[in-house]
Amino acid sequence: MAETRLDALIDALRRLPGVGQKSAQRMAFHLLQHDRDAAARLALSLQQALTAMRHCERCHTFTEHALCSTCADTRRDPSLLCVVETPADQAALERSASYRGLYFVLMGRLSPLDGVGVNDIGARELVERANDGVVAEVIFATGFSAEGEATAYVLGEALRARGLKVTRLARGVPAGSELEYVDLSTIAHALVDRR
Amino acid sequence: MAETRLDALIDALRRLPGVGQKSAQRMAFHLLQHDRDAAARLALSLQQALTAMRHCERCHTFTEHALCSTCADTRRDPSLLCVVETPADQAALERSASYRGLYFVLMGRLSPLDGVGVNDIGARELVERANDGVVAEVIFATGFSAEGEATAYVLGEALRARGLKVTRLARGVPAGSELEYVDLSTIAHALVDRR
Repeated sequence: MAETRLDALIDALRRLPGVGQKSAQRMAFHLLQHDRDAAARLALSLQQALTAMRHCERCHTFTEHALCSTCADTRRDPSLLCVVETPADQAALERSASYRGLYFVLMGRLSPLDGVGVNDIGARELVERANDGVVAEVIFATGFSAEGEATAYVLGEALRARGLKVTRLARGVPAGSELEYVDLSTIAHALVDRR
Repeated sequence: MAETRLDALIDALRRLPGVGQKSAQRMAFHLLQHDRDAAARLALSLQQALTAMRHCERCHTFTEHALCSTCADTRRDPSLLCVVETPADQAALERSASYRGLYFVLMGRLSPLDGVGVNDIGARELVERANDGVVAEVIFATGFSAEGEATAYVLGEALRARGLKVTRLARGVPAGSELEYVDLSTIAHALVDRR
């Protein structure tokens, strides 16, 4: 039967997103029985990340330094600023190798139902950052969910009011798609935005 | 962009069973951005579990003491020994509140393809444990997968050779099932084992 410290470990694992009781039990069993090295490494990397990671002063992503490696890279185009929700979204854009500007990472998105308002996603910092006199265009690459669209709209309006050029990633048919399997809303957008 | 300590944390999270690259990224982001308290608690509980948890001398489950609370419980029937694969399986049996004997937890199951042989699941310790002169019946409650069946068969034969009474959990139609949705193999077993 489970004893107290094992229960405590299972409870701690359950707080990971997407992990329920059974997954947490399986994880705890695996770590203690089959991979104690992974358990020790996870404990250490959690502590080190908690101690070392902070937010980049310019773009708000996670970094160990005052500026992240992207913001510190002088070869990037400082006149382009791309707004993304998370570091993972930024990583996806980087993998596409089609963007050479800088980023602003909101570390979230507007979600009034969850109590996430404009101040929680750094709206003031974004307006300040975009008004550095160098940024000429702000590209919104927030998600195409309801929350992502609302985030792009609200923040975009605030930046437009300051006279900045604001754009949005194009909506359309994904590369490699068969048209018959694409959802209607995407087809409608692709028709409207045809070029 | 991801920096080294964040990458290290994502790599460590990926070693959890069932966690891929995207889940690990989401977990790391959640822990660092929204729930640093959970991250600290997970690091601490991992360390404490690694230090404190060992195996019960009698049944091999995880415990902080020489004997687990079940083996130390003198109200349980020491003539019944139930063999299970994992502490989670034991917990499931306990929840059914229909068993008052003791357990032996294999902490795994035979799986030749993964290099898990009889010695890795404590076959010798089980035979020794079952031959304490008190155990009258060994009930195999290993899974009804191919590996679980093989485990029950191989260990069961070893115990029968020592003259012990060996039984297996009944197979049949799950409680609350509609017969039309039960798989054929289960129905066949339920017919053969009808009572």
